[in-house]
Amino acid sequence: MSLKHAVLGLVIERRGYGYDLVQRLQKRLGGGWQLNPSAVYTALDQLEREQLVASVQQPGATVRSQRVVYDATPAGTTVLDAWLRSAGPPLEPIRSDLHLKLVLAGPAHREALLSQLAAREEACAALLAEYEQTSASSSRRLVDAAVVGRLRADLAWIREAVAELRTNGVPVD
Amino acid sequence: MSLKHAVLGLVIERRGYGYDLVQRLQKRLGGGWQLNPSAVYTALDQLEREQLVASVQQPGATVRSQRVVYDATPAGTTVLDAWLRSAGPPLEPIRSDLHLKLVLAGPAHREALLSQLAAREEACAALLAEYEQTSASSSRRLVDAAVVGRLRADLAWIREAVAELRTNGVPVD
Repeated sequence: MSLKHAVLGLVIERRGYGYDLVQRLQKRLGGGWQLNPSAVYTALDQLEREQLVASVQQPGATVRSQRVVYDATPAGTTVLDAWLRSAGPPLEPIRSDLHLKLVLAGPAHREALLSQLAAREEACAALLAEYEQTSASSSRRLVDAAVVGRLRADLAWIREAVAELRTNGVPVD
Repeated sequence: MSLKHAVLGLVIERRGYGYDLVQRLQKRLGGGWQLNPSAVYTALDQLEREQLVASVQQPGATVRSQRVVYDATPAGTTVLDAWLRSAGPPLEPIRSDLHLKLVLAGPAHREALLSQLAAREEACAALLAEYEQTSASSSRRLVDAAVVGRLRADLAWIREAVAELRTNGVPVD
């Protein structure tokens, strides 16, 4: 996942300091992404080393109000444009720890798996409800639709898996 | 994603050498996972350092037929069982490079995005057809159902995104 390019894109849209960029990216992507704030700082450091952004120490009345503000460089604009145009991998992997557990578990793990599936079901349903209650900005509408589609598919699957484990136990070859 | 534990689980089921474990895991998880063989070797090294598996050099008639075979240790069996019982994060992130691109792109990137969406659509449809033609072993049936559900949701979304970009262009706030 190229979070680095997303951070670069935000800086190009408007200069900003670290925490500001974290908040803008969080807002832009929505809760399904589970943005890790420290990944944004790592991306900024990497972008600066690659001279795609440049930082300026902004003076403040107190040490606490001093901030490092990031501006895009001309090279940054070129790199973002190339990334947006470049074909990524045709398919992204479909992976989940729950899938690993299901193919490795034995009959003794039935109850543990059922409780993990129940926790996942609850969390998916809560996030789905959040998305369904929010009216997104236009740039987020499509991404939100993708997240909602995934959550609905995952929820349907979780319920199927629960029914299967309850009826037939843990599948073993 | 704890591939390390999945590899450990396979070794516990039956001792094996590296490439054998790659093939068994590939078969167990299915194509949607996009297993990276080198990740299996990395996992084996890590498991051996943690003394969860132990390797034995198996003699062969020629240097080429000598193999390093992995066996589980008692500690490995305990660790696998604890992992299967442990609650992971309630929700896994929903992330895609395409989502990043959609929220960062401008009107000039419309054609590039459409062609990336078309490539994704083709790859998703091909993988879905593969899954729909395969009758899976019982331990894989549930995981396959999860993958098929995701692929169908993604395909529906891709078609929606294509229609949106064609009709209204790239959404910008």
